[in-house]
Amino acid sequence: MQSIRSSSRLQRDLERLGVTWHARGHVTCSGPSLALARRLDRLFVAWATAWQSVEYSFPPFLSAKDLGKTDYFNSFQHLASFPVSLDPDEASLQTFAQNNAHTERELELGPLRSVEEVLTPAACYHVYAHLQQQSLDEPRYVTTKALCFRRETEYAPLERQWSFNMREIVCVGGAEAVKEFLSTSQARLGRFFETAGLPVTFEHATDPFFQGPRHPKFFAQKLDPVKFEMVLGGRLAIGSLNFHRNYFGEAFQIAHLGEPAFSGCVAFGVERWIYAIVEQYGADPAAWPEIFSIAEGAK
Amino acid sequence: MQSIRSSSRLQRDLERLGVTWHARGHVTCSGPSLALARRLDRLFVAWATAWQSVEYSFPPFLSAKDLGKTDYFNSFQHLASFPVSLDPDEASLQTFAQNNAHTERELELGPLRSVEEVLTPAACYHVYAHLQQQSLDEPRYVTTKALCFRRETEYAPLERQWSFNMREIVCVGGAEAVKEFLSTSQARLGRFFETAGLPVTFEHATDPFFQGPRHPKFFAQKLDPVKFEMVLGGRLAIGSLNFHRNYFGEAFQIAHLGEPAFSGCVAFGVERWIYAIVEQYGADPAAWPEIFSIAEGAK
Repeated sequence: MQSIRSSSRLQRDLERLGVTWHARGHVTCSGPSLALARRLDRLFVAWATAWQSVEYSFPPFLSAKDLGKTDYFNSFQHLASFPVSLDPDEASLQTFAQNNAHTERELELGPLRSVEEVLTPAACYHVYAHLQQQSLDEPRYVTTKALCFRRETEYAPLERQWSFNMREIVCVGGAEAVKEFLSTSQARLGRFFETAGLPVTFEHATDPFFQGPRHPKFFAQKLDPVKFEMVLGGRLAIGSLNFHRNYFGEAFQIAHLGEPAFSGCVAFGVERWIYAIVEQYGADPAAWPEIFSIAEGAK
Repeated sequence: MQSIRSSSRLQRDLERLGVTWHARGHVTCSGPSLALARRLDRLFVAWATAWQSVEYSFPPFLSAKDLGKTDYFNSFQHLASFPVSLDPDEASLQTFAQNNAHTERELELGPLRSVEEVLTPAACYHVYAHLQQQSLDEPRYVTTKALCFRRETEYAPLERQWSFNMREIVCVGGAEAVKEFLSTSQARLGRFFETAGLPVTFEHATDPFFQGPRHPKFFAQKLDPVKFEMVLGGRLAIGSLNFHRNYFGEAFQIAHLGEPAFSGCVAFGVERWIYAIVEQYGADPAAWPEIFSIAEGAK
């Protein structure tokens, strides 16, 4: 990191940019930080457009049935957030109202309706669920931005949040098309980081889809790394490139020319990109490289 | 309604516009429907800009402590959705993984972490929570778009969803400024609906903040209606104008010139506006009034 900032300095910078930190793992953005988030997303969408990607806006929930196909509940159940609602029985509702009318913090939920959904943990799962049981003749390029949820034990503003925005570009098709998509994307990103002067390196990482010794595929994956993270200053992953082989094609029965489809994705963590720019260039938008500069017309 | 469409016709129209319906109360949008959602939001933002509103992007959750200040848990607990996560105890997590690895539908959650948040039920609650304990010298105009959540027993595409997008313009300040904000907004909207040829009328409605005979304020509110809905074809509310008096000013200790602040909001249900346009003008964007037309360049 060229410029190490103390956390109090960073805190002041974030306030100046209109970022309000909520202790439980979320941010509110307004003013320059909100404009920067949009500027960054236009950049990501421009990269998606280079692949003629079709854009989708997916729901905030995935069905448990679909997410279960990815082995998520075995590997990442500790990170999952589930949307629940109260049992509609009138007596239960009244008990809830009495117990929680003036809660100071923690709710007592009582009996719940059946739980069949999960708050989106990663944007691209929606793409495989959307394409399930389809048969493709040529590669599909899709982009989507989703609010994603990961329950952690500790949070830090922009760096590690319970809820955060993720933009993804996804390719589903034959193995060669997916590899070409990932290698071309990596080369383009490498040129971009160099031009922008952002100290980002590509580093092999453990594939999150098979993470943890609990899962037998962990060892296979260690032999054949399929995830490259975009690591800022040797410390913070602001995005990743992932080669899933035909894992999702098999899980969701997506075929490409008669065989389980291959897939790969390029993922961008929007809040971490904001963090990267503030930490690297400071809180004055005028000092940011031109590619990140924002119109100051917005209030 | 000038043109009554059968539900199968509407279903075909929605598919043509890139809308995929998920039975549990959500939609996926792409192509023309996604472009229309963005076009509509630019329209709402233009109206917000007429008030020089400051835009905020709030988190997807409200703290239970804040939402409890509005009496929500007494009046609307049946609509609420709560984000929950599993107890991080290793044995609990393993039990969850074993019970849910290949769920066909319903999850067995087991022990949970403490629940201290609620998925946003209406966009404007965030504004009052954000301004709490502040003292204002002049009116504040704020706009925000939020994904909102209301658990219902039945859903219909675009009309009634568990999750949907809501754009709001909010005024917090003195009583006169808030009344002026609402009456000017209503006049502007009335002119817009006339120009666009949308059959929308303004109708008194029961204030949702005090709804239901369970709540003593229900009767006071019946004498003094404070909510006007924008009703399409005598049937579907696509938005509303709300005068809260100083209810939120008191609940969140927001002062204006030494007194509890008054507030009002104008709310737009984005999916219901899409529904209105498709039902009224059909699924061919070329047949939509110019104000709703979208560039067809997007894939």
